[in-house]
Amino acid sequence: MIKTPIIIVNYKTYAQAYGRNALELTRKLEKVADGNIAIAPLPMDIPVLVKECSLPVFSQHLDGVGFGSFTGHILPEAVKEAGAIGTLINHSERRLRLADIEASISRAKQVDLATVVCTNNINVSAAAAAMSPDFVAVEPPELIGGDISVSKAQPEIVSGSVEAVKSVNQDVGVLCGAGVKDGEDVRKSIELGSQGVLLASGLVKAKNVETVAMDLLSGL
Amino acid sequence: MIKTPIIIVNYKTYAQAYGRNALELTRKLEKVADGNIAIAPLPMDIPVLVKECSLPVFSQHLDGVGFGSFTGHILPEAVKEAGAIGTLINHSERRLRLADIEASISRAKQVDLATVVCTNNINVSAAAAAMSPDFVAVEPPELIGGDISVSKAQPEIVSGSVEAVKSVNQDVGVLCGAGVKDGEDVRKSIELGSQGVLLASGLVKAKNVETVAMDLLSGL
Amino acid sequence: MIKTPIIIVNYKTYAQAYGRNALELTRKLEKVADGNIAIAPLPMDIPVLVKECSLPVFSQHLDGVGFGSFTGHILPEAVKEAGAIGTLINHSERRLRLADIEASISRAKQVDLATVVCTNNINVSAAAAAMSPDFVAVEPPELIGGDISVSKAQPEIVSGSVEAVKSVNQDVGVLCGAGVKDGEDVRKSIELGSQGVLLASGLVKAKNVETVAMDLLSGL
Amino acid sequence: MIKTPIIIVNYKTYAQAYGRNALELTRKLEKVADGNIAIAPLPMDIPVLVKECSLPVFSQHLDGVGFGSFTGHILPEAVKEAGAIGTLINHSERRLRLADIEASISRAKQVDLATVVCTNNINVSAAAAAMSPDFVAVEPPELIGGDISVSKAQPEIVSGSVEAVKSVNQDVGVLCGAGVKDGEDVRKSIELGSQGVLLASGLVKAKNVETVAMDLLSGL
Repeated sequence: MIKTPIIIVNYKTYAQAYGRNALELTRKLEKVADGNIAIAPLPMDIPVLVKECSLPVFSQHLDGVGFGSFTGHILPEAVKEAGAIGTLINHSERRLRLADIEASISRAKQVDLATVVCTNNINVSAAAAAMSPDFVAVEPPELIGGDISVSKAQPEIVSGSVEAVKSVNQDVGVLCGAGVKDGEDVRKSIELGSQGVLLASGLVKAKNVETVAMDLLSGL
Repeated sequence: MIKTPIIIVNYKTYAQAYGRNALELTRKLEKVADGNIAIAPLPMDIPVLVKECSLPVFSQHLDGVGFGSFTGHILPEAVKEAGAIGTLINHSERRLRLADIEASISRAKQVDLATVVCTNNINVSAAAAAMSPDFVAVEPPELIGGDISVSKAQPEIVSGSVEAVKSVNQDVGVLCGAGVKDGEDVRKSIELGSQGVLLASGLVKAKNVETVAMDLLSGL
Repeated sequence: MIKTPIIIVNYKTYAQAYGRNALELTRKLEKVADGNIAIAPLPMDIPVLVKECSLPVFSQHLDGVGFGSFTGHILPEAVKEAGAIGTLINHSERRLRLADIEASISRAKQVDLATVVCTNNINVSAAAAAMSPDFVAVEPPELIGGDISVSKAQPEIVSGSVEAVKSVNQDVGVLCGAGVKDGEDVRKSIELGSQGVLLASGLVKAKNVETVAMDLLSGL
Repeated sequence: MIKTPIIIVNYKTYAQAYGRNALELTRKLEKVADGNIAIAPLPMDIPVLVKECSLPVFSQHLDGVGFGSFTGHILPEAVKEAGAIGTLINHSERRLRLADIEASISRAKQVDLATVVCTNNINVSAAAAAMSPDFVAVEPPELIGGDISVSKAQPEIVSGSVEAVKSVNQDVGVLCGAGVKDGEDVRKSIELGSQGVLLASGLVKAKNVETVAMDLLSGL
């Protein structure tokens, strides 16, 4: 199981967060993380980051396919063997069809990978919860990459998602995404009922990564 | 609201079911229907079928968009003004992203169109139900167009979907699709807890449409 | 075949351009058109506009499928029977996979529909031309709906597309889209080697549609 | 530049060709390859295969994006830094939109990766060639994974693609895919004007990989 509360750092395709830079960034995070930070790098960076660093690693995406003729797909077994412990699914920058989300969750469970399904509003959070992932990460698209966190701008989306998710499946956790910037945002997210946050630019592009990471961790 | 039990006939892009043929086919169905048959023709056929025939009409698809720059999309307001009473969403031949399904349901409700979300298994049925459409139509893709109906081949998918859907939202009905051929299939579907069936080739391609329709209706 | 030069008016899903409003708008355009204006309305509006008005009608989209199990797709035969003379393909708001563009062009030709493939830059225009549609309509996405026409902002994209298209296939015409607002834009587009323009909001949302249409036509 | 003639082995998501198995398979191929075999493994396997083996490595897919907010995408710079020399684009199991193919080719060139665009027929091959990739790999989808190679079943698709590609852009090479099984298939492909083959199951699933590889190489 994933230890909570958790901060998952999405490396996206940022210049600061692929290849050698990903290794450097992860080592900075390692210094301050106390079991509460996980990272989501590009697939080709997973094996090295797993080998060289201690932070738990998520894939940014995974396809609900098995062994066979699926060129260009991300095989769950390969994500697992590379050393990841989980995967994001359906990020707003990589939206999936409903049937494929279900297949992705189902296949990830078969290979014992944790699942974080990203959603854009309360209804979609409820739908995601009905497929029993480990977490639903609610991220209103209009707030992603912005200066105002969802927990401040639209706290009712977080609390509403927590309520909707729990009413469908008590065992599904909620993460809070979009615009999370500092420890105050994290603290607010936790207060609203979430088990943590999913964030990206606020940390990856920070001038002083350790300082920002420590501030974020202070909110847990 | 949609009168149930209901048989929805999906015209797809069948040669027997577009343009003038759609009108002819619908007139045959009208003769035997007793308020229990609805049809889902191509969008350009909706206005004529609404004007010339009495059967309730569904769109085969609709996009979760509004007025604006959405070339090639099916505008909910246009479906409504054309005279349809509802729409299929997420058919296995037109799978949508989760966020788009939610937007389609939400927009359809705003213009007072009934919604039938197609699903492929029990988990996906539960997810669809969490977004509160009027109906979930469960159709295992491997049985669509085949000779064996889901209610015979995999009755547990129907009863399981009914159970899963009701546990998420009591107000959502379940339809039963894939391989429905005769009155016996319809009767079995109803017994398993569904409010009707969604079918296509079994009726559209029948040599004697009236006879097959009457047989199907006998199962309600 | 399509008479050129031509102005194709894309009705998109504008409030001013669907259902009864589409009929009203088309009647205004009819008053001033002199065989040089065609319209691209929503599919459910095609039959009425063909019946009630004299302007040539394009579909906004069409799928490269045939008779069969293709729920929610736009059947070329149905577009033809509804009375359209052609179709847009691959608009920036409805981008298609390469193989599907080819299938759409191929199927449209089989039912004798003219084809206008939308593209976003010179290389893509060349690729589209290699599949021998009737027209390639080049529309840099960043200019669509904007205040500056492509023929003014990036004339080299129009002239470059004309050159690239002709070097691949002499028989393919070029249309010019994105930001076309007045007769001057149209004239400039023609000078750059195009056979006409594809436009939308500049005309559809105009306060005085006839005046704007007449100005546009003056540029031919 | 890629040395030709070439045999590119697509590892897809085969059980025999990911993680440790990919390393084992590649070592077998290394024993017999003489500079003419390249491999296309999953992204997380690229770094290890590049480090441990000598065969040139292609990515199975790449997205036409840059640094930024593109969760779940395959960044060209990351493919390059992982040590690959090129990438497949638009495989039939991962079809892309036309604009995305063009963006993928363009971005791959910026980071000096060779490009192989997969196509399904002669018209699509011509369209792909117009965007100036290094190679077009023509693979009729109905023959992929089958027992009959395209060079035997439909030699006119290979020769027609060669002719169409060369008439659009002399500098683009043609590869031949779908059903390639033995040296005779390879020889026939080369005779028809191709610079090599793209194959998968015929080699990856072979009982004796070295024997099959040597037979294939004999056809060059």
